[in-house]
Amino acid sequence: MDKKLIQRRLKQLRGFLREKDLDALVLTKVENVRYITNFSGHDSWVLVTEKASILLTDSRYTEQAIGECLGCRIVERKKTITDALAEEVKRHGKIRRLAVEKTIPVGTLMRIRKALHPLGTAVVCADSAVEQIRLIKMPAEIQTIRRAAQIAWKCLDAALKSLRTGMTEQQLTAHLEYQMRMRGARPGFDTIIAFGPNGSRNHHQPSGRKLRAHDTILIDFGVSLDGYTCDITRSFGWNKVSGEYRRAWETVYAAQQAAIAKLRDGVPAVEADAAAREVIQRSGFPVYGHGTGHGLGLEVHEMPYLTPLDKKTRLKAGQVITIEPGIYLPGRFGIRLEDDVLITETGAEVLTTDRRTGYSRGSLQILKGRP
Amino acid sequence: MDKKLIQRRLKQLRGFLREKDLDALVLTKVENVRYITNFSGHDSWVLVTEKASILLTDSRYTEQAIGECLGCRIVERKKTITDALAEEVKRHGKIRRLAVEKTIPVGTLMRIRKALHPLGTAVVCADSAVEQIRLIKMPAEIQTIRRAAQIAWKCLDAALKSLRTGMTEQQLTAHLEYQMRMRGARPGFDTIIAFGPNGSRNHHQPSGRKLRAHDTILIDFGVSLDGYTCDITRSFGWNKVSGEYRRAWETVYAAQQAAIAKLRDGVPAVEADAAAREVIQRSGFPVYGHGTGHGLGLEVHEMPYLTPLDKKTRLKAGQVITIEPGIYLPGRFGIRLEDDVLITETGAEVLTTDRRTGYSRGSLQILKGRP
Repeated sequence: MDKKLIQRRLKQLRGFLREKDLDALVLTKVENVRYITNFSGHDSWVLVTEKASILLTDSRYTEQAIGECLGCRIVERKKTITDALAEEVKRHGKIRRLAVEKTIPVGTLMRIRKALHPLGTAVVCADSAVEQIRLIKMPAEIQTIRRAAQIAWKCLDAALKSLRTGMTEQQLTAHLEYQMRMRGARPGFDTIIAFGPNGSRNHHQPSGRKLRAHDTILIDFGVSLDGYTCDITRSFGWNKVSGEYRRAWETVYAAQQAAIAKLRDGVPAVEADAAAREVIQRSGFPVYGHGTGHGLGLEVHEMPYLTPLDKKTRLKAGQVITIEPGIYLPGRFGIRLEDDVLITETGAEVLTTDRRTGYSRGSLQILKGRP
Repeated sequence: MDKKLIQRRLKQLRGFLREKDLDALVLTKVENVRYITNFSGHDSWVLVTEKASILLTDSRYTEQAIGECLGCRIVERKKTITDALAEEVKRHGKIRRLAVEKTIPVGTLMRIRKALHPLGTAVVCADSAVEQIRLIKMPAEIQTIRRAAQIAWKCLDAALKSLRTGMTEQQLTAHLEYQMRMRGARPGFDTIIAFGPNGSRNHHQPSGRKLRAHDTILIDFGVSLDGYTCDITRSFGWNKVSGEYRRAWETVYAAQQAAIAKLRDGVPAVEADAAAREVIQRSGFPVYGHGTGHGLGLEVHEMPYLTPLDKKTRLKAGQVITIEPGIYLPGRFGIRLEDDVLITETGAEVLTTDRRTGYSRGSLQILKGRP
C-alpha cells in the first residue's frame, strides 16, 4: 500500500463531498476506515473534510495506527469516541453539514447528533460513498486476491492430504485453517466443511460428523491476506459417488460456466444470474435459493450482488465477483462450485485458477483415502 | 438449551413490550436473535409480539433453523427481508407501534420505515431490551463459559508444548487455534499473540515476528463453545526475563487481584476499575489506557464495562465480566493478565481457573524451550 493510492481515494471521496454539498464525512465502518487510511484496527472512526483526514482511535491502537496510517492525522482519544469527534469538529470549525454512513447504528447516530447539535452542525446520512469507490478494484487489490487464492489452493491441498475416513468436519477445518495460519494468512470467513447430507445446508458450521467411506464433501473457504479475502467452494466425492451426484456436479459446473460466459463490462448482473439458473432449471434439479454471486474485496460480501431481485445493476470492468451456483438435495447432498472472477472490458478472468493442484479442472474429482 | 429457557426469555421481553407500549419488536442483532430463538445463523430477523415469535430467514438457513429454533415460527423468505417483515406485520394486523434495536444500521431502519408506513405502523427505536436480559447469566450460560475455559487451558497447554525459539507469532497462533478446532470449539475472537515489544500493542495481530531466546510472550485468546466465549490473557517469559519485567508482572497481578477483591453484588463498576489502576499508579509504571474489564457472553464485549468514564453502573450477581489490567512499555514489552469472573451475592468466583495446567497460579511463569 502506498500513500499515492490513499490520496487518490481521498480525492474521489472529496469529489463526493462537493457533489453532495457536505463539509465532512465520518467513516465508521471498519472496512471503509481501512480503505481510506490503511489502518487495520477496529473501534476507530475517520473524519474526512476538504483538507483533512483524521483517525480517531484509542490507546489500544495508537502504536498500530502510527505504523499503518497513510495520509491522515491520528488522534488518541481519552474520552468517548463521540466526544472526540465533537472536539475535532469544533477545532476544525465551519462544518455545517456532516454526513455519516448508512451502516452506522441508529443509537450511534443519535449520540453524534446530540454531541454536534450545540456546534450548529447538521448530521445527515450519506449513500454508500466509499463502497462506490471500492466497487472498482485497483491492480494491487486484484493482485492480493489472486495471491490469496494461490495460498488457498496450497492450504486445501495440504489439508486434503490429511483426510481420512472417520475424520470429523471440525478436524478437517482444523487442518485447513492451520495451513492458512502457518502461511501467514488467516480464514477470511467462517469456513464451511460439510460431509454428506450436511452439504445441503448452505451455511453449515463444521460439526462432529465423521467422514464415511462413500461420502460427499463440500468445502467453502477463504484465505484472508492483507485484508482481502478469496472465496472458493469445491465439492468432491470420497472413494465413489452415485450417478446422480455426478450428474448434479456436472450440471452445477455447466451452470457456473454459463454465468461466467455472460460476464463482461456493461452486462446486467441479472443476466449472469439467470444464465446459471437456467442450466439448473433445465436439468430438473431444484434451483438454488441463494444469489449466484457477490462482490468480493475488503468484505467477503459486498456490492455488486447477482440475484434475480436486482434487475438494475450492470457489471463494470474492474469489479471482482464470485460465481457460485449449487444444487441442494436436503437429506442427501449439496454441491456448490465457486470461483472469483475479475470483470474485464471484453469478458472475465477467473482469479482462482491453479493448474498445479488441479482443483480448478472442470471435472468431478473423486478423492481416494485410506479407511 | 431447552424450550423453557427460551420461553422465560420471551416472557421477560414481552414485559418490556408492555412497559414501553409496543405491539412488536424486531430483533436484527445476531446475538439477540440467537438468545431469543436458539438459531445460530446469520442474516435473519425475529419479530416478537405478545403472542408470536417469528424467525425471518432464507433458504440458506432453513434446514438449520428447523433443527435449532425453539418456540418460534420459521418463515423462509423469497423477497427481501424488509418485504418479508412487512408481510408478517400485515398478516398479524393491529401493530401500531413496532420497535427496532438501537444497533440497527440507519439505512435498514429507513427501509423498514418505508415498508411499514403504508400499513400505518410507526417504527421507533427501543433501548437495549434483550441486552438487559442477557446481562444476568443463567446457570447453563455460566457453565458453558466455564467449559470453554477448561478447553482453553488444554489448548494453551498443547500449543505451548510446540513452542520453540524461532517460531513466529503466526505459527503459534496456528497451533493454538488448531487445538481449539480439534476439540470441537473455535476461536472466540481474533487471537492475539505478541512476542517482545509487540506486547505493548493491545490489539496486536499475530505477525511473522520470531520468538527470540530471551523473549516475552503475551497471549490473549478465547475459546467459543455453543456461542459463548471465554476471554483469557496470560503473559510469560521465555527462558529468562529482566528484573523490570518481573516487577511489572507482579504489579499487574496485584492490580488484577485488587480489582477482583472489590467485586460483589451492588458494587459500582468504577470501584473495581479504580482499585486496579491505583495499584499500577503506585508502582510508578504507566497506567493502561483501556478499560479494566467488560461483560462476556454471546458477545466478547458486552455490558457492563469497567472504565473510569462510567461512574453509574453497579455490578449485579449473575454477571460475568473480565478483569484485565496491563502494563505496556512501547518498544519494550507488554503484560496483561485477564480472567473471567462471575459476580455473586457476596463476592466473585473466577471461572477461568485450572489447577491442572498451572497457568492460573499467581506467579510469573518462565517457559523453557529448546532453541
